[in-house]
This record gives sequence, C-alpha cells and structure tokens, in this order.
Amino acid sequence: VAARLLATHPRFHLAFATSDRHVGEAVDSQLGVPVSQKLRFEPNDAAVQLASSCDVVFLATSAEVSVEIAPAVLAKGKHVIDFSGAFRLESAEDYTRWYRFEHPAAPLLGRAHYGLPEIFGPPKRAVAGGDPVLIANPGCYATAAILALAPLVRAGMVEPRGLVVDGKSGVTGAGRKATEDYAFNEIDEDLRAYKILQHQHTPEIARALGRVADGVKGLTFTPHLLPIRRGLLVTCYARPVAGVLPYDIENKLAEAYAGRAFVQVCPADRVRLHRVVGTNHARLGAASNGDMVVVVCAIDNLLKGAAGQAMQNLNLLYGYDEWLGLSELQRVAP
Amino acid sequence: VAARLLATHPRFHLAFATSDRHVGEAVDSQLGVPVSQKLRFEPNDAAVQLASSCDVVFLATSAEVSVEIAPAVLAKGKHVIDFSGAFRLESAEDYTRWYRFEHPAAPLLGRAHYGLPEIFGPPKRAVAGGDPVLIANPGCYATAAILALAPLVRAGMVEPRGLVVDGKSGVTGAGRKATEDYAFNEIDEDLRAYKILQHQHTPEIARALGRVADGVKGLTFTPHLLPIRRGLLVTCYARPVAGVLPYDIENKLAEAYAGRAFVQVCPADRVRLHRVVGTNHARLGAASNGDMVVVVCAIDNLLKGAAGQAMQNLNLLYGYDEWLGLSELQRVAP
Amino acid sequence: VAARLLATHPRFHLAFATSDRHVGEAVDSQLGVPVSQKLRFEPNDAAVQLASSCDVVFLATSAEVSVEIAPAVLAKGKHVIDFSGAFRLESAEDYTRWYRFEHPAAPLLGRAHYGLPEIFGPPKRAVAGGDPVLIANPGCYATAAILALAPLVRAGMVEPRGLVVDGKSGVTGAGRKATEDYAFNEIDEDLRAYKILQHQHTPEIARALGRVADGVKGLTFTPHLLPIRRGLLVTCYARPVAGVLPYDIENKLAEAYAGRAFVQVCPADRVRLHRVVGTNHARLGAASNGDMVVVVCAIDNLLKGAAGQAMQNLNLLYGYDEWLGLSELQRVAP
Amino acid sequence: VAARLLATHPRFHLAFATSDRHVGEAVDSQLGVPVSQKLRFEPNDAAVQLASSCDVVFLATSAEVSVEIAPAVLAKGKHVIDFSGAFRLESAEDYTRWYRFEHPAAPLLGRAHYGLPEIFGPPKRAVAGGDPVLIANPGCYATAAILALAPLVRAGMVEPRGLVVDGKSGVTGAGRKATEDYAFNEIDEDLRAYKILQHQHTPEIARALGRVADGVKGLTFTPHLLPIRRGLLVTCYARPVAGVLPYDIENKLAEAYAGRAFVQVCPADRVRLHRVVGTNHARLGAASNGDMVVVVCAIDNLLKGAAGQAMQNLNLLYGYDEWLGLSELQRVAP
Repeated sequence: VAARLLATHPRFHLAFATSDRHVGEAVDSQLGVPVSQKLRFEPNDAAVQLASSCDVVFLATSAEVSVEIAPAVLAKGKHVIDFSGAFRLESAEDYTRWYRFEHPAAPLLGRAHYGLPEIFGPPKRAVAGGDPVLIANPGCYATAAILALAPLVRAGMVEPRGLVVDGKSGVTGAGRKATEDYAFNEIDEDLRAYKILQHQHTPEIARALGRVADGVKGLTFTPHLLPIRRGLLVTCYARPVAGVLPYDIENKLAEAYAGRAFVQVCPADRVRLHRVVGTNHARLGAASNGDMVVVVCAIDNLLKGAAGQAMQNLNLLYGYDEWLGLSELQRVAP
Repeated sequence: VAARLLATHPRFHLAFATSDRHVGEAVDSQLGVPVSQKLRFEPNDAAVQLASSCDVVFLATSAEVSVEIAPAVLAKGKHVIDFSGAFRLESAEDYTRWYRFEHPAAPLLGRAHYGLPEIFGPPKRAVAGGDPVLIANPGCYATAAILALAPLVRAGMVEPRGLVVDGKSGVTGAGRKATEDYAFNEIDEDLRAYKILQHQHTPEIARALGRVADGVKGLTFTPHLLPIRRGLLVTCYARPVAGVLPYDIENKLAEAYAGRAFVQVCPADRVRLHRVVGTNHARLGAASNGDMVVVVCAIDNLLKGAAGQAMQNLNLLYGYDEWLGLSELQRVAP
Repeated sequence: VAARLLATHPRFHLAFATSDRHVGEAVDSQLGVPVSQKLRFEPNDAAVQLASSCDVVFLATSAEVSVEIAPAVLAKGKHVIDFSGAFRLESAEDYTRWYRFEHPAAPLLGRAHYGLPEIFGPPKRAVAGGDPVLIANPGCYATAAILALAPLVRAGMVEPRGLVVDGKSGVTGAGRKATEDYAFNEIDEDLRAYKILQHQHTPEIARALGRVADGVKGLTFTPHLLPIRRGLLVTCYARPVAGVLPYDIENKLAEAYAGRAFVQVCPADRVRLHRVVGTNHARLGAASNGDMVVVVCAIDNLLKGAAGQAMQNLNLLYGYDEWLGLSELQRVAP
Repeated sequence: VAARLLATHPRFHLAFATSDRHVGEAVDSQLGVPVSQKLRFEPNDAAVQLASSCDVVFLATSAEVSVEIAPAVLAKGKHVIDFSGAFRLESAEDYTRWYRFEHPAAPLLGRAHYGLPEIFGPPKRAVAGGDPVLIANPGCYATAAILALAPLVRAGMVEPRGLVVDGKSGVTGAGRKATEDYAFNEIDEDLRAYKILQHQHTPEIARALGRVADGVKGLTFTPHLLPIRRGLLVTCYARPVAGVLPYDIENKLAEAYAGRAFVQVCPADRVRLHRVVGTNHARLGAASNGDMVVVVCAIDNLLKGAAGQAMQNLNLLYGYDEWLGLSELQRVAP
C-alpha cells in the first residue's frame, strides 16, 4: 500500500523497491498502478546500497530487520520512515520484555521521532547538513488509542491510572503469513482475543500518553481479531476526574482536532469502520457519565494505521500539506 | 430455536405455539423438525387462553408484552419462563430508566427467579399446590459477563467498583427486524459500538453481581455489533485486590465451575466463538497482572444466551439433569 | 458513487443532485468529498426543471421513472445518461414481458446509444445544433457477459445458440432496499439463485450479442446473490465451432481488447473479484476444449457495472480520454 | 465430522481413530463429544493393523493413500467406506488423466459401489462369508450435480450431450491446508473459478449419469470458491427434449425423490444454503423454458457431500434406516 501511494504521489516518486519474493518482477504489475520508471524488485539485502539513489527510505520490515537496516541507511545521510516497532519504545529493556530481542541500536531510540502528527507535531528536520531524520511510524492500535485518549489525558480530565483499551482489528493487521491461524476457515464467523496483557502496543500507547501527562500507569490493552479484512476500532475506558462533565469531554476532543485534515470527531455511536476504511481518516467520539468516559476510535489499519500515516509524515518532513497524495482516498473509498 | 429444542426434547413436548405472522401455518414446517402433534400457529393474543393446556409457558416476547402476559399466565397456575428483560431488574424505577416504560407488575419483580443456574442455582419450586414459578431467563450479554465475573467478585478477589464489560455480538442478537440498520450492506465488513452507556443489560449485570458481593458500583458495559450471525464474546476488566495472584484467579474460576456441564474454563487466548457456537456451552478464561484481571467469555447468544439456558432452567424446574435435550448440541455443532 | 466520481472529475462538475430522502442536506457531507459549489439535495421532481442549468443529466432512477424523465430532459436539449434498463431493450413488447410495464416512450428505444464502449464504440454526438444524446448505460451483469462473449460471437468462433451465462453478484447490486431479503442474517454465509429464467438482463445480453452476429437464440442467464458487498463475476458457456482451438479463443480475446484501458485479458483461473473491486476494470479469461468454451469475467458492479462506465461514456461523449477521472481508482483500490 | 457422527451413533461405535498430527491425544477432546471408550489417536500407518478390531473402516485419506490402504483392509475381510475419489472412476486411464497418478488397484474399480443411495440404491452385501464391501463415497459437487440431473437424464427428458454444471462451494470443501490460497485475506469478499475444465469431479459426474442413460457426452463442470465456510450449490443446465414441459420436469423430480428422507424438491428460487447447512439434506428445484432446464441443488458439503452420506451408506450396509444417527441434525442446524 505504501509503495502504491508513493508511486502515485504528486511530489515524490518511487526510487526502488525490494522484495525477496518478487525479485526481478516489474514493480508496476505487482502494485497495479503505473510507476514512473521501469522498476523491478531488488533483493532485500540491497536496500542499504540502493539508499544512495534516494532521499528517504521506507522500511516495511520486521523490528528485528529494521534495527539492522535503519542505522546503516541513516549513516548514509538518508531519512528513514520505519513501519515496525523498532524505534517506538523508550529503552533497550522495553525491547527485551515486549519484543523479545536485544536492541542493537539503543542510542537511536532517543533520537527517533514518533510520527503521530496530530499529537506530536511534524518531524523536525535539521538545517541543511544536519542529521537525517528517523521517524518511528506508529502502530495501528496505538494510533487509534492515542488519538482517542491523548487530549483528555493531557487536559487532566481523566485519571491517568488504569486506562483500558479494548481493540478490534481486521486480519490485514496481521500481515500476510500463510499460517493455519489465519486460514479462512479459522477466522470467518469467529472472534477471539489474542496476546492478552502481552501485546507490544501496550508500552507504545503508555509511553505516548506518558509524554503528554504525568502519572500514566497500569494501562491495559486487549486486541481481538475480527472476521473482516480491513479496519480497526478501539473502545477506550478512562475514569473522569471529579467535576468533569460529558460536555467538557466532547468539547475537548472537538477542540483538540479542530482544523485537522484526518481526524473527525462525531457522536460515539456514529463511529464505525465503514466510514474510515479506504481513507486516511480517524473517526472518534466519546460518551461519558460520572463513572466512566468511553472513547471509540476507528481507522483503516493499513492507511492511518500504517502507510497513510507514513505519507503524512513524509509530506510534513518536506513541508508539504499533510494531505498531499492522500486526500483523493475518500473519493473512491468503498 | 426454543420451540425447536422443546419440540425435540426427550421429556417435554410442545403444546402450542403462537405467531401473528404465521397464524395457521404448520409448526413443523416452520421449525424444520417433526412436532409430536399436528400443531398450527395460533395468534399471539390466544396465548393466555392456551396456557390452560400446558404446564409451562415460554414467553419470547418483548418486555412490554411479557409484563402483560406473564401475570395472566401465572394467575392460571402455570409456570412462566420469560426471555425478555421484563422481570430481571430490581425495581419499577429501573424499568422507567433503562427500558423506558412503566412496569405494571412491579410486585412480581421480587418473586422472579433469575435463571442463571451456575451462579444462582436451580429455580425453587413450591410444594404441591404452591405458587407457579416465574423464571427471568437472563440476557445474552449478561449471561456471559456474570459467568466471567461472579466467582471473582464473590470471592473478593477483584474490586467491585469500576468493572468494565466490553461485549461483542453477532447480528442474531438483534432480532429479526428488517430495518436498514441490519441490512447486509450495512453490517458486512463493519464494526460499531451501540447504546453506549445506555444498554439495558448494564443494570442486569450490576444487579446480579451485587447479589454475590457488596460494593458493586459504577459498572460500565459497551456492546458492539459484529459482522457475523451468531456468537457473543465479552472481555471483562476488573482490578485485582492487593495480593491476589494470577494463579489464584485461575484456580477460583476452575473451582467455581468444576463439574458444571456447560461452563468450560480454559486459557484466555483459547476462548473463541468457533468453540461455542451451536452449543449450550460457555467457555471462559482469565489473564491477569498486578494492575488488571481480564476475563474473556464466549457463548452462543441464541443457546446459552437465550433458548438453551431456558431449557436448562426448565430441566431444573422439573428435577431433571440440566443437560437433558441439550447435550447432543455439540455433537453436530459447526 | 456516480455523484462522487462526477464531483471530483477533473473536467466536469456537479451542477445539482436530487434525493427525496435527503432534500435540503448538503451534498458534500453525504458524498464525503468536497463539492465545488455549496450544493444541497433538491427534490426528485425538480430534476427536469434543474436540467436547464447543466449539459448532461445522469438518471439513477428506476426504469419506470426514467421513461418519464428522460424524454422531458431530452426535450430541453440536454444529454441523458440513464442507469436504468429503460432504454436498453429493442421494443415496447420487451418491456411488457421483462419489466412488466408499458413503455410510454418507445420511439426513443431506437435512438438510444447502448453505452458499452469496448464493443459498441463511443456515443455519437450530433453536430452543433443536433439532437441531444440518450445513452443507455448497460446493466452490471450484461456488461460482464457481453465483454466475455461478444468478441467470440462476432468472430463466429462459438455457436450463437444456447449460450449460458451463470452470474454471481454482491449485494450492492440489489440497491439499498431495507427488505428482510437483504438483512444480514439472511445473506451472510448463504448463496441462492434468483429470478431464474426471468431476469431482465437476459434480453439485454441477447440483444447486444445479436447486434454483433446473426443467430443468437435461446440464451440462458441465471443470477446468484453472493454474501459479499461488492463485485460481480460471470461464468459463460458457449460451444466452439468445429475446428476452433483454445489458442484461437485466447488470441481473439487478447486482440479484441488490445490497447483498451479498462479490459484485461488473463488466464481464466486468475480472474477474481479482488483484482477488480474498487476499479473500473473488467478482467476476463477463457478456457476451452472441444466441447465447450468457458469465459470468466469479473467487474466491480458499481463501477464498470454502473457509475464508472457512465463516466467512461461521459468522457467519450465530450471527446476526452475514456479514463479521465477513473484512472486513479486502482491506485487506492482495496 | 465423520468421527463425531460415528462416535455418537445409536448403533455403531468408534473402534479407533488415526491421525499423525494428533497421535496420542484423546479422541474425545479433539472431537468435542464423548467417545464410548478412552480412545487415543493412533498413527496413520497403524490403520491396516487396527482394522482387525472393527467391522468397517472409514478412509478419510487422499486418493493416493486410499488406493494403498483399501486393498489391505479388504484383504482382512473388513468393509471399507472411502471418502476419496480413489474408487469412483471407471478405469485406470481416468486416474492417469484426472488424478495424475497410476492406479495400483484397478481391478477394485469394477467392484466398488458408488454410494449415492437415492440414485444407485443401498450397497449390496454378500451373504455370510462373502466378500467385504468397498463403498466409494461420492464427491461433494458430484453428489449435488447427480441428484439434480440423474432423474431427468434417466427419463430422457433432457439431452444427454452438453450438460453444464456450474458449482459454488464454501472453503471447508478445500480441506485444512494452510496455504496462502486459503488465507482469510485471500478468500473474504472474493470469488473465483478454479480447475476450470480440469476438476476431477467432471468424469465422476459424467460416469454416474452415463450409468442411468446412454449418450452422456461433453459434460462441462466449473467449480467456484465462495467466501463462506460451509455449503455447496450447483446450478445445472440441460436442454429439454422437444415436447417436454416445465410441468413434466417438476413432476419427474418430485416423483424421483418421493419418500426419500434426505432430498427435498422445492421451487428453484427457494433452494439456498441456509436451508441445508448443518443437515444431511439436499434441496433442489428446477425452472425451465423451451430452451433450457435449470436445476439448482444445495447441500452441506461436509454432510450430504461427505460424512453424512457415508453414515447413510453405513446404515444401509447394515440394513438400518438410512437416517439413523442423522435425523437429529436438522434439529440443531443453524
């Protein structure tokens, strides 16, 4: 998806694409869109060398691979936008615990920009001659959960302790693995929770919220696998601080995203996958009473939850409008 | 479904069936199973009169209708098993708030037996000549949530305040209405929350848990509509009391349901709809850490969540094994 | 979909839109895309009057309504592109038999252009001052079936008698009716044939094929309703004329569509909905032996099967490239 | 499914079960039903030896494996019901062409009983001391197609040449392979034809029809993969012999299946998967005009299309009613 968006972007073009599986095949026939040059897929291990021919490298690799390639690409002075979790967490220990590998490039963790523009702003580019930028493109569940909760946590309207995020995602979120777990017969007409209390987006959400307010602790996240292909919805639970009214909550969310191209605030029961799938939009809404604030947020896990957000980050890195090459999406969304 | 289970039960038989829509049609052709007698559907308003011909009346009517029919049937000395929410809550005020009608038979609320046998035991039958029994058959979400939480709440292992129930159900839970909301094009590949903070199973769950322990307050329940036909899963969140270990939680659940025919305790990530749809089983499991206990529970919303549980209650009312006429279900489950 | 495509077309703009259901609502909020002017929906019966303000009127009305509106719009000198079957058949008798109404504008039948550009070319526009054009935009099943069969029938490679078209379509083909037939519970995990030997696309396909070769008789068409939202596939069966080889069949199809923007010929087992849904492409392929030629063709029923093809016709009517405003579709297809 | 049906059959019991994948695991926990004895799965290559302990061996193996095991089991004097295509075709050459292997037990082909009881009657058991019986349990598509066409072909009401069978099946028909082809993301919301003109049920259907009438030639069969789990529907096309009326066709089908437990004849547009999935029923209906007879037939591919039919054959082999252990299925069908 990212390659397709890039190949058809009005300001950028695709310089190369690697895929061990499709080495030598024409890129345009795989993508199904015209590509400016006659590109063919290169082997994955040529990525660092090929980086010389471009300005920015997108890494749609696993975290274990990204930690190896990203430093090498940065060393060549090229920007990196990484789709994996390799540079989203705070410390090497987080990786040992949640990703179960030793992070070989821990110093980069502090330098990476967490690319959720609506909350953390555009990536900061050094002046000419400065260091290249490393953008950690957020996880799909994390994007939806942070958009839902950050304005309220930042404003001190909800208790930062004991937040609950109940997530539901379509199967494209799980990658293209051909394992029996993702066989049609196993998924269709089923629902199950997975990685309960162990999903790696838990510390990612907690860290991001911890950057907007003190006291974020004990956050719980449970992902579920939906029998659909595309789309992700989170239902977030937070306890309101005494005196906060439903009206305050709704106003705060509306205010936080006023003027943003890709976040729509609406009544909570009008948040649904159909309105966002195929677009780069997040749609969110809240309902609350004295006991609980419930915020529901829906995104397309492959767009705002991955490739669309990466394009937003790329646009912002170069000072363009964030919606460049993305605004047509809703035109043709199913 | 209830009529089909009843028509083929080894000990009971179907005495009559009403349906304004199918008046005069043969019951067996509608049900697709042989019915002992040559029954035809009667009009709904004949129900009270027909009650004379049987021992127990099943009411699969809306709450507004059940509150009218149930007292009349009980007055004829016949037992009632009501599928609606008409007799599940505590007080007339609860009905004004959550069901938005004035309850005309409030005195029956105290007398109704809440028919979740694994938690509240079998319905108590008076000795010969005593009053007939009114069984309030539990709601589908409520059944799953109470099975998940009651043992832990009762044992004081989790905080009774601030419980969260995130529910997801297939579309059969919504009845057979032909509204645009339930059109295939609206549901397929979609997900949305509905009746947020306003679903009538909220007070039902809270009341049931409040009967097993003190201090249940501020329970939050959010239902979601899944793009599947059948099956319901709840993900429940409760804060552990200090010192309670994951091991304790798992043991307590295992112990609570040891020897029960219809509740299986398993690892939380092995709870899924495929294992329960088509059967009267609930399948549940817990995961926990120091911050949160997560209990996942799956049922078939039409069986353990409705008609299957009603048969369990009927069996118990007459002193039979609770699985009579239900144990074959898993044999042929998809 | 048509209004959305039109509103965002690089050369045309949306002059007005009518909808009795949404009268007074902003058009852009319904479409989810920006509309050049601040349009609001007008009542349907204002359509003829509003026609004065534009050059071409799209009719997405039922055949019974189109037969009334189209003549009035043409009388004002405006072009009409009609999505219904109102002007696709040959004679008034065809309408009595297949549409079950008396056609009040039979003389227009001979004048209408059947807008399947790959087979029947672009609509012919009169010189300045001449009559406005009436384009009968083809039916969805008919589009796929004619693309599959016309080149072979025209070339005399298959017997024109006894052709069989077995069609399968997603539910969006059936419109937005909120009837019980299209309820999620009725469609999901089901399949059924409908209007067997009685579907109105039967004479439409037969007539179109009859225009490319003599002897087309006894064509049979059976539509089926798939449990998906979007996409349509036809499997067509024709007996090869003696001496015609598989190689000839494949060559003829490749040759017929060489250079066409929207028809891709490929091996028959690589024709699938996923490759066309969200685009204006038809994808088709053939397999054959001495007894039978099987041609499979897939389209998006809402694009190549309706609104996309209408845009193709509009582009051609004004002498633009047929892909204008349509070529971006595959960029963002799911 | 077969093991589950067998384990709970009122007259038979499961003597052993083999599964290389589950060796040593308890059979009842895998099946989800109680099994009379404490069986554990044995390795597949123990099957022949274990055959000594029972009367009938079910082979749910591939054709290549069945051709090896079946002769060995028969040699021990035990009956065999084979689910594969290994003994359904006429000659060794058929296997070379359609199954692409050399058949090592060709003499058994003539001896095998093709187990479609409604068309070919019950398996004939030799008198005491005679040969054991080899039952070739029909393929799923073949079952539906033969039930749809055989009565009309046999009666000479349709032309035996040029029959067309357009089949559509859910994914369980494809076995449990974890290949990328059957991944959820590949199947959901898709449709495609496969093995066009090359599916091995083509000669199976042709042979069976050829046994009921002369002149069956040039039959074409196209299978399609539906985005559902369970259920199979065939749409069959045959040219009526001159003078045959729709009325004759319908009467012939009704007559052919009068009194049969598992075949229901109904109007063609009321044939749908929902009515048969979960049961051993075939449901079929015809529509016709002077050009074509269309017969639609739906079955559950795992029951009437496989395990259910095997139980029917087993019942008949032992002289029981064919519905024994199967009639409860529809009671609890979804």
